[in-house]
Amino acid sequence: MNQPTRPALPAASTSLWPDSRFSQRYGLSLPVALAPMALASGGALAAACADAGALGLVGGGYGDLAWTQREYTLALQAKSTRRIGCGFITWKLDEDASALDWLLDQAEADLPRALMLSFGDPRPYAARLQARGVDLICQIQRLEQLPLALEAGAQVVVAQGAEAGGHGMNALNGRATFTLVPELADALAAQSPATLLLAAGGIADGRTLAASRVLGADGALVGSRLWASQESLAPAGAKAQAVASTGDGTARSEVFDILRRKNWPAPFDFRALRNPLHQAWESHVEALRQDPAAARADYDAGVAEQDYRRAHATVGEGVGLIHDCPPAAQILQAMGEEARQRLGG
Amino acid sequence: MNQPTRPALPAASTSLWPDSRFSQRYGLSLPVALAPMALASGGALAAACADAGALGLVGGGYGDLAWTQREYTLALQAKSTRRIGCGFITWKLDEDASALDWLLDQAEADLPRALMLSFGDPRPYAARLQARGVDLICQIQRLEQLPLALEAGAQVVVAQGAEAGGHGMNALNGRATFTLVPELADALAAQSPATLLLAAGGIADGRTLAASRVLGADGALVGSRLWASQESLAPAGAKAQAVASTGDGTARSEVFDILRRKNWPAPFDFRALRNPLHQAWESHVEALRQDPAAARADYDAGVAEQDYRRAHATVGEGVGLIHDCPPAAQILQAMGEEARQRLGG
Repeated sequence: MNQPTRPALPAASTSLWPDSRFSQRYGLSLPVALAPMALASGGALAAACADAGALGLVGGGYGDLAWTQREYTLALQAKSTRRIGCGFITWKLDEDASALDWLLDQAEADLPRALMLSFGDPRPYAARLQARGVDLICQIQRLEQLPLALEAGAQVVVAQGAEAGGHGMNALNGRATFTLVPELADALAAQSPATLLLAAGGIADGRTLAASRVLGADGALVGSRLWASQESLAPAGAKAQAVASTGDGTARSEVFDILRRKNWPAPFDFRALRNPLHQAWESHVEALRQDPAAARADYDAGVAEQDYRRAHATVGEGVGLIHDCPPAAQILQAMGEEARQRLGG
Repeated sequence: MNQPTRPALPAASTSLWPDSRFSQRYGLSLPVALAPMALASGGALAAACADAGALGLVGGGYGDLAWTQREYTLALQAKSTRRIGCGFITWKLDEDASALDWLLDQAEADLPRALMLSFGDPRPYAARLQARGVDLICQIQRLEQLPLALEAGAQVVVAQGAEAGGHGMNALNGRATFTLVPELADALAAQSPATLLLAAGGIADGRTLAASRVLGADGALVGSRLWASQESLAPAGAKAQAVASTGDGTARSEVFDILRRKNWPAPFDFRALRNPLHQAWESHVEALRQDPAAARADYDAGVAEQDYRRAHATVGEGVGLIHDCPPAAQILQAMGEEARQRLGG
């Protein structure tokens, strides 16, 4: 660790939404959290977001211990380490929680401010987080998942719409950000008014950030827009492909999970750029599942050659609002300014 | 017709969004259009919306001449007939345009203020509308559909997200309201700044109406929320089922189109309450298509008995924000007031 003791929390500068409980709880100048995107939200990106006034969640993803150790340690180089946390795929923690264990074993000053759990039952992990004073952020995709998050005592619930990139609910079960956020806001107001609500899925500029607030969220979790940043660990070729795409150019399916040999349970699937390899298989998913060898070879070659006509680029529908890959601080500043304008502040 | 001459346009009362070009163009007090929902948006509902300050579009749907004649004539009983229009499914007009012909043959005073075309190529109809001074509203579901709408000279483009009830883009091709609206706003600003933009899909309360505006729309097309109104022609049993549902309780698929013997072309499908009959077939669509007889008998019996465990209730994800079926005027007034509060006006 760079810092022997945790530095004092920097004062939030100009507050976009003075009444955002999310900004207040985490000392933010912008009510935004970096989505903990596996393999993209590394330590440099999390630190850059924290220093720009947002909550920087490292993408612990599948729970790889060495990756988490390296990137979380990098993230702690932020001036604002009290704005650093991490996120995991819950059902993978059920198989191997060593990265979570390592984080919770940190000295007080280096503990994550919050841990975000998605895609599974958060309750088995809640007591340990609470014992160490680490906030629990639960990401959900449907209203019916709220009771488990509340039972786990989540301080923050993230409402993830199916327009989000990466994993989420499949087509039959997916909800959209636009209706899920206000419906969850109503449910929290009735059942657990102290619990904070973030919108996720499609928040890629100041308009969508402002709209999240108007819909009833305390803030937003931002994925694709920060995936396409200078500090993101996403491959340069994938970023270039994404910047050139409209929002029409993504799709959800199980195709890339099958190609990547990921054993994701139903009803989750994956949104990414709808490239030619995806298009070849998207209407033949069962056939692909039965006999994936040739398609996997094609995919593996695409990854090796950084050929994104075959390899995947993990972005959501918000990619149509993304036209460049500047530093994260510049992205967040622009989002904040545009959101403030939209809200007439 | 009831009125020998068209009454003067009533003055818009309190304007929610004084700068809404949509309100200005149609003399509205609320920047809202009633979605022209087939078999639900009858003349009484369209008239109620017009008199409450919105644009009332009769649900011409599949183009049934007798239905359109009856309901459009009823709609003209509105005090505000300059706020009355109609909507059609474009690919059905290609088979039979008699209802459109009848509308365009009306005397000047009884002409629709605007016609909305969805799901097909609007260009073959554009010149006739223009010749009679009837505005063209084109509903689209993807950015790539914008060029045809602009080529047709649409005065208004409706961005319909896949969260909408009824027909729309299927899962692989669907876009969400939350990202489609700002992306289309950017495209229109660059290519055709005089064209107005409405958001559709999920707009069911003042928050979602206000968010539409923040996302860059000039107003919103409202379906489910007005489907669940006193004046709507939707069956009472269907309304009751919808009011009891959360937003988790709908799904998109081809199931109900197959059961109803509707020959909708790809890539469109249909969102409705995900009732037990839908659940039984939603993962076996090809089998249903091959051998639909038994399921159709089940469905037909459901319709005959008004049993909505088998018959369909056509609502979108916004149904989770809908808890009653009051008169349309009351719905619109509440939406306007809440939207104004959200926008701090």
